[in-house]
This record gives sequence, C-alpha cells and structure tokens, in this order.
Amino acid sequence: MLGLGAMGQAIAGAFLEAGHPVTIWNRSQGKGEQLVERGATRAATAADAVRAADLVVVCLLDQAASRAVLAPIAADVRGRVLVDLTSDTPQRAREAAAWARDEGIEYLDGAMMANVPMVGTPEALVFHSGSRAAYEKYAATLRVLGGRTTYLGENHALAAAYDLAVLDYFWTSMSGLVHAFAFAQAEGIKATDIVPYLVGNGGLLAAIAPGMAEDAERRSYPGDADNLVMDTAGVEHVLHAAEQHGLDVSALRGIKGVADRAIAKGHGGDSWTATIEAVRTAATATATAATTAPGTPA
Amino acid sequence: MLGLGAMGQAIAGAFLEAGHPVTIWNRSQGKGEQLVERGATRAATAADAVRAADLVVVCLLDQAASRAVLAPIAADVRGRVLVDLTSDTPQRAREAAAWARDEGIEYLDGAMMANVPMVGTPEALVFHSGSRAAYEKYAATLRVLGGRTTYLGENHALAAAYDLAVLDYFWTSMSGLVHAFAFAQAEGIKATDIVPYLVGNGGLLAAIAPGMAEDAERRSYPGDADNLVMDTAGVEHVLHAAEQHGLDVSALRGIKGVADRAIAKGHGGDSWTATIEAVRTAATATATAATTAPGTPA
Repeated sequence: MLGLGAMGQAIAGAFLEAGHPVTIWNRSQGKGEQLVERGATRAATAADAVRAADLVVVCLLDQAASRAVLAPIAADVRGRVLVDLTSDTPQRAREAAAWARDEGIEYLDGAMMANVPMVGTPEALVFHSGSRAAYEKYAATLRVLGGRTTYLGENHALAAAYDLAVLDYFWTSMSGLVHAFAFAQAEGIKATDIVPYLVGNGGLLAAIAPGMAEDAERRSYPGDADNLVMDTAGVEHVLHAAEQHGLDVSALRGIKGVADRAIAKGHGGDSWTATIEAVRTAATATATAATTAPGTPA
Repeated sequence: MLGLGAMGQAIAGAFLEAGHPVTIWNRSQGKGEQLVERGATRAATAADAVRAADLVVVCLLDQAASRAVLAPIAADVRGRVLVDLTSDTPQRAREAAAWARDEGIEYLDGAMMANVPMVGTPEALVFHSGSRAAYEKYAATLRVLGGRTTYLGENHALAAAYDLAVLDYFWTSMSGLVHAFAFAQAEGIKATDIVPYLVGNGGLLAAIAPGMAEDAERRSYPGDADNLVMDTAGVEHVLHAAEQHGLDVSALRGIKGVADRAIAKGHGGDSWTATIEAVRTAATATATAATTAPGTPA
C-alpha cells in the first residue's frame, strides 16, 4: 500500500481487517503507526513495499504524484498487478494506462466513491476499469474495500469518468443543500427544520432520474410533468429571493443561464432534462458569438 | 377552485376523487372539460365560483395573478377560507397576507411541492402556513392533495420560504444531474448507465444531510470525513474535464468560487458545510470590494 493519507490509511485498514497481509509505505514519515499496531509491515522504501506483495495498491494526491513514486521503480512493479485508487481525470488515467502498457505493468485504474468512514462497508462504491484479467484475479480482495465494488470495462478511463460524473452530481447537490440551508436561515428557518424536506425531495429526484436519463439518450424531452418555462420561473423566484437576502447566487445564475439558453433553443415546453442541450453546446455558442461579433474584421 | 392550469386541474381532480363537490373557474375558456365530466360544476365568473363553496382554493401563475382575480371579489371571499396554492416568494406571501387581513379574509398560503402526476398521492408534499384555525378546520380536506400535507405555523411566509428552500436544493440537484449526464455522454458513457450511481450516491447525501444541518446551525464544521481543500480539488477536476469537453461550466464555476472564498476565510480544513460562510457573505464581500477598490476617490 503506497500512500497513507486519510484514504490510504482507510484502505490499508480495510485490507488488514479482512485478514490480508499489508506492507505500507508513505513519502513522509510518521504516518500509519496505528496500521503497524494492527499488523501491517512498514517498508523503508516504495520499492521494498512493492516487492513484498503481488498486488500493489496506490492512493496518493493525484496521478502526477503516483508517477513520481512509480516511475523510478517500474521494474519492481512489472509482473505485479498495479491498482491505482488515486483520484484524477479520465485523460490522466489514459496517460497512466499508456505508461503502464509501455512498462509491461498490468494496470487497473480505480476510484473510491466512498468517504473515509465508509471505506470497507457494504454501501461503499468503488469503480475499477482496465485489465479484466487483473480485476478477475483480485476481485475478492478488492471487494474488501466496498460492497459496491464494480468493474466497468477494459477502457482505463472509465473509472475516472464515472468518478467525475458522480462528483459532478454530488458536489452540485451538496452546494444546493448548503445554499438551501443558508436561504432557510435567512428566512428565519433552522437548517435542521428544513433538512427533512430537502432530503425527502431527493426521493422524488431518485424516482424521476432514470426516466430523465432515457430522455437524455433519446434527445427527446416531453414536458408532461413539468416544463422548462415554469421550472425556470421557480429558479428565478429562488434566485431573486436569495439575492434580496444578500446570499451568493453565482451557481443559481449559471443554472438559470443554462435554462434560459435551452428555452431560447425552443425547449420551453420540454422538461428540465432539455437543459442538457444548452450544457452540451456552451462552447459552440461562445465560438459562434466570437466569430460573428460585430466589428470583427472579415 | 380558481385556476385550471395543469396544477389547478390536478388539485380539482384530487378533490373530486375524494368525493368533494368542486366548482371550477378559469380566466380563459375551454379548460377543465374532463373535470366537468367527472362531476365538477363550472362557474361563469370567479365570484360565482367563490359563492358556491366555503373553501376557496386558488392556483394561478403567481401572486399578482391571484390578486388580479381576487381583489375585485374580496367581498365574496370574506367569511370564507382562502387557500392560495400559487407559487411565489415569501415577500409576496407576506403582502398577500396583509391584503387578506385588511379585507377580513381568513387566509392560508400553501405550496404544492409535488409535480402534477404526484398530486393526491401519499408521497406528495404540500406546505401550508397562516391561519391555524383555517388549517384545522380544513386539514382533512387539504390532506386529499398529498399525504405529506404539513402545517408550518402562523407566519404566512413560511410555506413560500420552505418552498423556495426546497426548490433551491431541487433545481440545483436537477442541474447537477443533467450536467453529469452531459459529462458522461462526452466521455462515451450512456446517461442510462451512469444514473444508478448518481442516484445511489444521493443516498450518501441523504445520510449526511442531517449532520450537515446541525453543523450549519452551530456554525462549526469539523472536517472529519472530508475537508474543503480536498473537496475543491475534486470540483476542480470535474470543472477542468467538463471544460475540455466544451460543456457549460458556469454553475460549477459558481460552486468552486464559493468554495474558494470559504477556503480563503480559513475553512480549508473544515467540511463542505463551511461553504455556507461564503454563501452568506457574498453581498458584504462585494460591498467591501467596491468601497475599497483602488483608485476610488476618498
């Protein structure tokens, strides 16, 4: 186990808990004392740690940190299975996969979708993608990290892509949750009083999300249950009231801007899912505006 | 029942379904034919409709539309209970309550938190606030509109304030969901393949939301499970990758901007909930920036 940040320690702890021998290493000293007490072996160097096991698990700050640790010891990693659980972008996962292929290393890219306290629980979600043979060989071991461990396919970028799509939704929702707390408080309502209704409505979202995904694939957005003009009026009410309380409304402004652009594209009678047409075409719209700006020399 | 838009029709339909006599009226003609077939009585004027019942339910475009219909017939509404389910802001609910008080009308402000197909189901959430006597008199009738019908208190603005806080979270989450679909598709992943993981992670959010609300009330944000510096790095990964795909990132930019300001305020080691400190202080920060801008004449 290379990397003993909070997540690295949780991962090593879950392996120990399941009875697997674990050798640990960290760039800076002094981390992982509790793991040693629980039976982990501390290696003096990353190369020593790698040579102690057939399965090399890495969890560092980002892919650049992973490469800085792994590149000098690539010969030691060769012949072993490398599972990198470091969070980064799909593009960097592709680069890491290309590096591993060049070095003759069997490589799985992984993404921990659980926060630290959830690691090792049945609810914890972990994505893997890349070498199918490597995944099949170590599936039982890797499942120790989370009951919802999922192999997505041979394309190494899939775990990072799923990771970022989930983070996209998660942090946007978290931002909406905190904003709703701030709005409620500005109206004299306690965050603890409003939270059951926010989370309860999350159930509505879970109920309608699969149908929205089908519409997004078909690029057809029937406005049966809602329509974008009405929805956007609701967003405008929130934005206006939040602004009057002096709250930051930059995210809401971005959301309303996307909805307004979708309406301008003729989706006013469609469902909220139609905003995807404006999300997708942001760059094109900007490029068009730039090339057709008045006063631009031909 | 005054107002026969999609929501107004759903409301009248739910009353009919429960066996209540319903008299309907709409500003424009030709709406509600199905309701008449199901037993509703059509009134020629709003005043006729009001005089036909003790409970006057209104669902129009906004409070301005409600006032335009109700002000000329205030004398007819007097002595009856007025329940306005029109969506609008807390400020306009306060104005409507003041008007009703001046006219001697017992008034409940309501907010339908369900979409049209959900109206009348056990899961449907409806907020009411204002006259407690009016609510208690008609609680059983009003509960027909949704199993989660909830009276919030005498302050008429509460239903609208709860409504907007819920909408704040809901539309922000919906925006995150659609953005995640667009991001997944840009990575060659189907929205229908990613959606179980997005909604599944919504379960994590529901699990942590009550604790976040407590932190927001205490204004203490211990970074045990996450910290804002790490969280913001995740948001930055999403933003960067989405931007490379040419997607609109205006909402994500707003979200990251708030998180960056919270970090600048010293909350880097705190949890995401600490972003509320930046949400709250947007206006002050802008005001300070404006008054201390270099070159401003003293």
